Amino acid sequence: MKNVFGNSVSVTLYGESHGAAIGAVIDGIAPGIAVDEEFIASLLLLRRPSDALSTSRREADPFTIESGVFGGFTTGTPISIRIPNGDTRSKDYGELQYKMRPGHADYTAQQKYNGFSDYRGGGHFSGRITAALVAAAGIIIPALNKKGIYIGTHISRCACVDDAPFTDYENDIKALNAKQFAVLDDKKGEQMKENILKAKSNGDSVGGVLETAVFGIPAGVGEPWFDTVEGLLSHALFSIPAIKGVEFGDGFSLCDMTGSCANDAFYYDENGAVKTRTNHNGGINGGITNGMPVIFRCAVKPTPTVSVEQETVNINTKENTTLSAAGRHDPCIVHRARVVIDSITAITLCDMLTTKFGTDWLAK
Amino acid sequence: MKNVFGNSVSVTLYGESHGAAIGAVIDGIAPGIAVDEEFIASLLLLRRPSDALSTSRREADPFTIESGVFGGFTTGTPISIRIPNGDTRSKDYGELQYKMRPGHADYTAQQKYNGFSDYRGGGHFSGRITAALVAAAGIIIPALNKKGIYIGTHISRCACVDDAPFTDYENDIKALNAKQFAVLDDKKGEQMKENILKAKSNGDSVGGVLETAVFGIPAGVGEPWFDTVEGLLSHALFSIPAIKGVEFGDGFSLCDMTGSCANDAFYYDENGAVKTRTNHNGGINGGITNGMPVIFRCAVKPTPTVSVEQETVNINTKENTTLSAAGRHDPCIVHRARVVIDSITAITLCDMLTTKFGTDWLAK
Amino acid sequence: MKNVFGNSVSVTLYGESHGAAIGAVIDGIAPGIAVDEEFIASLLLLRRPSDALSTSRREADPFTIESGVFGGFTTGTPISIRIPNGDTRSKDYGELQYKMRPGHADYTAQQKYNGFSDYRGGGHFSGRITAALVAAAGIIIPALNKKGIYIGTHISRCACVDDAPFTDYENDIKALNAKQFAVLDDKKGEQMKENILKAKSNGDSVGGVLETAVFGIPAGVGEPWFDTVEGLLSHALFSIPAIKGVEFGDGFSLCDMTGSCANDAFYYDENGAVKTRTNHNGGINGGITNGMPVIFRCAVKPTPTVSVEQETVNINTKENTTLSAAGRHDPCIVHRARVVIDSITAITLCDMLTTKFGTDWLAK
Amino acid sequence: MKNVFGNSVSVTLYGESHGAAIGAVIDGIAPGIAVDEEFIASLLLLRRPSDALSTSRREADPFTIESGVFGGFTTGTPISIRIPNGDTRSKDYGELQYKMRPGHADYTAQQKYNGFSDYRGGGHFSGRITAALVAAAGIIIPALNKKGIYIGTHISRCACVDDAPFTDYENDIKALNAKQFAVLDDKKGEQMKENILKAKSNGDSVGGVLETAVFGIPAGVGEPWFDTVEGLLSHALFSIPAIKGVEFGDGFSLCDMTGSCANDAFYYDENGAVKTRTNHNGGINGGITNGMPVIFRCAVKPTPTVSVEQETVNINTKENTTLSAAGRHDPCIVHRARVVIDSITAITLCDMLTTKFGTDWLAK
Repeated sequence: MKNVFGNSVSVTLYGESHGAAIGAVIDGIAPGIAVDEEFIASLLLLRRPSDALSTSRREADPFTIESGVFGGFTTGTPISIRIPNGDTRSKDYGELQYKMRPGHADYTAQQKYNGFSDYRGGGHFSGRITAALVAAAGIIIPALNKKGIYIGTHISRCACVDDAPFTDYENDIKALNAKQFAVLDDKKGEQMKENILKAKSNGDSVGGVLETAVFGIPAGVGEPWFDTVEGLLSHALFSIPAIKGVEFGDGFSLCDMTGSCANDAFYYDENGAVKTRTNHNGGINGGITNGMPVIFRCAVKPTPTVSVEQETVNINTKENTTLSAAGRHDPCIVHRARVVIDSITAITLCDMLTTKFGTDWLAK
Repeated sequence: MKNVFGNSVSVTLYGESHGAAIGAVIDGIAPGIAVDEEFIASLLLLRRPSDALSTSRREADPFTIESGVFGGFTTGTPISIRIPNGDTRSKDYGELQYKMRPGHADYTAQQKYNGFSDYRGGGHFSGRITAALVAAAGIIIPALNKKGIYIGTHISRCACVDDAPFTDYENDIKALNAKQFAVLDDKKGEQMKENILKAKSNGDSVGGVLETAVFGIPAGVGEPWFDTVEGLLSHALFSIPAIKGVEFGDGFSLCDMTGSCANDAFYYDENGAVKTRTNHNGGINGGITNGMPVIFRCAVKPTPTVSVEQETVNINTKENTTLSAAGRHDPCIVHRARVVIDSITAITLCDMLTTKFGTDWLAK
Repeated sequence: MKNVFGNSVSVTLYGESHGAAIGAVIDGIAPGIAVDEEFIASLLLLRRPSDALSTSRREADPFTIESGVFGGFTTGTPISIRIPNGDTRSKDYGELQYKMRPGHADYTAQQKYNGFSDYRGGGHFSGRITAALVAAAGIIIPALNKKGIYIGTHISRCACVDDAPFTDYENDIKALNAKQFAVLDDKKGEQMKENILKAKSNGDSVGGVLETAVFGIPAGVGEPWFDTVEGLLSHALFSIPAIKGVEFGDGFSLCDMTGSCANDAFYYDENGAVKTRTNHNGGINGGITNGMPVIFRCAVKPTPTVSVEQETVNINTKENTTLSAAGRHDPCIVHRARVVIDSITAITLCDMLTTKFGTDWLAK
Repeated sequence: MKNVFGNSVSVTLYGESHGAAIGAVIDGIAPGIAVDEEFIASLLLLRRPSDALSTSRREADPFTIESGVFGGFTTGTPISIRIPNGDTRSKDYGELQYKMRPGHADYTAQQKYNGFSDYRGGGHFSGRITAALVAAAGIIIPALNKKGIYIGTHISRCACVDDAPFTDYENDIKALNAKQFAVLDDKKGEQMKENILKAKSNGDSVGGVLETAVFGIPAGVGEPWFDTVEGLLSHALFSIPAIKGVEFGDGFSLCDMTGSCANDAFYYDENGAVKTRTNHNGGINGGITNGMPVIFRCAVKPTPTVSVEQETVNINTKENTTLSAAGRHDPCIVHRARVVIDSITAITLCDMLTTKFGTDWLAK
């Protein structure tokens, strides 16, 4: 249903990059969840652009919660989070109204909306809209943590540099969530940053892979057909601009394994809990969680805005032409996308858990 | 919503491997579509197991259409397709009731359904259920073809052997759809089969990658948030047992490209149509089709049923134990899954096109 | 979503009056519910036509449960219930193919389905389809009873005769559910039957009002906007052919009351439970249950099939013409519709309760 | 799905009476619809309270459209309409926090939301939220008018006074839409107002019946099962606080008719169009429009806020107590609810028509 996602917990998104405001309405959150606006602000900071990848701290997006929270707690009714667009002066977009930026949604928006879409700054397709998802997740994540469920994402690969792998999920997740540039090995992170800056100086951009772990999710969540854990998560994740692939567990690497290698052997641990010796299946069998950490990776394509000259079309004159992006642009959005993935994961799993355990579960 | 998928066109699945019947109810198909039961039977044959990968022809699953078709045409009301389960004698499943097969959904089903699920032959998690999806798609695919939309899938990689890539989408798709073992290079196909038989003789199994192309889909299909083409297709595709990754266009390979390389330059062709020079983005920008072929790849893990001994748990005695699958099993399901992917793709795109163009579109 | 209804518990309907079979797929029922096929058969008997309203017992519709039940208990996966159409010999419907029966869906089906719908016996619009809903409810009702929730409907008015009102909900419901002709005052029932037979002898038909009470539903069920108890129940109830009005509590009679009279005063009873002195609001305030019995009434129009001559159109010749129904027809369906209302109520409330309390609630 | 309604066109509601803002996000509106903010303001004026029912003109609710409209036209992306709550000073609600107002949702909200709901001024249950629905409809209604579809509602009965019936749908609708107090016979309107003021002077309130006609809707809209026209409209209409009954065509009056009287005879008119001689079925057969005007009536209960003393409970002290509303209150909301019904009808029918004719239909 278009801009609405979720069953028991649903989120509705709206807004354009240069309109009055963007926002999200999140419904189905249990009544009685404490809302920490400082935590929400800290999450939003993780997706803010950083100057030349330095740590020069910027202010988070100024959000207001306009409904659904009363006296510091969720009421159980829809929570409207609004983020006004600060600077919407009408600069000249003339050229970009007609010249379709390659790799962007300019042309497809034009086709879908018959020429009526707001073309300024990507309009409704702008990555800026994800800020509303992050703010919404800022209410859910602390409540999931209280239930022992932790979500963390690291930059598994960026600009052709690999990060170290997860070794201790619980502690790695906590460490990552304290970092602005989410790598497990900070040396690798420095190499990534160097390569990003190199691409920037070439007027170009780079992509990467984000790997996410969810620790503490109980067994038995998900459905066998259609609303599998993989199906619901990927449905939501592919909304993030630039995500072009999603794989669970060992994903595409499973294709070259034999069955005897790819299967995860079950065993009872010393406390009588069922565990698996390996986790090639990413904590999911038959679409349903098995109690092991849920693991997935998202492919993030390089930012399409580059200043090197590119071929394209002018849909006004109906001629072939060229285009070079002017001004400053993100040479990489991998490090910024990470908190968006955490947020979408939190919202989607909260939906599935609320379906399973009932509307009040999150607050119990 | 669990076992129902789709908005304007929806499919409801039911059935267990050893129950009375499996089936699908498909709703929202335009009235007036000619139904060709022979074509449906031919599609079903593509997912039937073949003996030792030989071509010994077997009969397709015996389906009946019990509603929604009258005088050879769809009526516009729900189409119920039922496939009875032929041989449901109650053999002894005693051990498998309690010993959880690694890589299968036995344990997660047990957890989700509190011990009440039908454990015989995988129950509701059985790949057999996909036959109902294939039969449903057998009504839609010829109607899409009349609209100039063609869907084809090849075994891009299997048992560590790569097939040739797509070179001419339209003709490659037609060629693939005439083959039982869907490769573009038959020599590579022979090598794949050899490796599959080798794995079989070792009591083991192999996986692979299936690559799908959709030719002829118009620009402007899909939504920017949540119901993106990638989101809806992946949601449905991950229902297929053994699929653990989905990538669009160049997918994970995009991560190592620069933006200037990954972007697909637009141009007007000699007929004034907007095309792209490359198709790294798989025919989708911002979640919406751009008129180029839609391309995606699915990772198929090796069949989890293997006859080599594996560690597991007995949930009755609550002890660690071992298990070896007895009898004959598919050493590979990649070649059989291909028609299931085509079918889910046809159903999902038909849903999106019907939403865009209205309920009668498919028959116009 | 057309032929699918429900969120946490959903039902998918299919079938035509003269097709191979009708059926329902019901999904989201908790695993572990005991299934009593005899009880299902007894419910189905309540909606069977009775010969001249006598009690000559007939066999119920022969249903089979084809999935979702194993060893006598629900598995938690979709339950497919199939009812074959016994007598589908192709009698001559020539005239009815083109002459649109007034008060029926012949003309609207023709318009909606562009002439492709199955016109035999009402096709997909036939009241016969409700048998599948009744069978589905036959699984849910005993489980609701175990939770202390009882549903009962009486013929509040029929053929211009009023039944006695509810006086003791709990016992009245139990008494009604044991009766084939559901009245609280059997003398009034006899008068109704007389009037029905009188209408029949005139080649005409009569309607009535069905009043339903739900006892034992907890407070706090329903949503303030859109998914109110009234909204969801009426959405489902208006599917029943012939229902043209739904009112809750005192319904239309509330319009002439003053606020001080219409309000239901709250009080603590001797056990400290909150009750209301009156129940003008039918157990629902602001769309949400308040713990008092939920009360509603459905208007059932007279059966449109009558043997007196009626004006209509022939859509083949495009001429005005006349039509008289031949053969035997129900002079009244009020008494048969009652179990369909109970069934839809059971399914809808089970959906709402499962959303509130989680997927396993019904079996706990 | 709780606070979201609709399939192809959906509306998401949020807000509390005394929160920062209320609003609606409406999605699925075709791109290219001209947006007339003055018309929206004029609609909002129709639901504003009028002082002692005099015509002292008040300002409409100050709304802003924050997304989905660009250059005066809809973009096709979600339209966010926000109405800030002007006067939210924190007056003392102490007593009303614990004393449950009879006839209101105070107690059910308390039960559903475990004591966390915003109790001030009815919170999320406030009729004020309907302003957002009216504003959303203000975009749709002019576009439906361009398609020849007109919606109008009159106060069929109020304070025990009957209005004149519809005689000429098209012109009656236009006349009604120009009136603040929507009656067809203004003398009857004066009597209604007198009776309302009489109830007010008694510290009491009155209810009524609103009758709606939709002119110009084509045949073939709606679904046979579940998503009938009656089912979808009633689902939405019952969200309006105070609506306790919905009937279509002659509704409950049909129950006392014979079939030969209740059936609407079809005929070809002089232009070859199929019409019915009568319209007892309210333009709907089998859940689907037949091309005649769609007619329905809603029962509006008397406003529950009255200043006469009422029994109730104090949930803090857990004692029986009494309550009299202080200050000024609406002695009647029937005349204000009329535009809310028009609005919900416009949104719901636009959804159904968009499903049938495709996403761009409204702008074509």
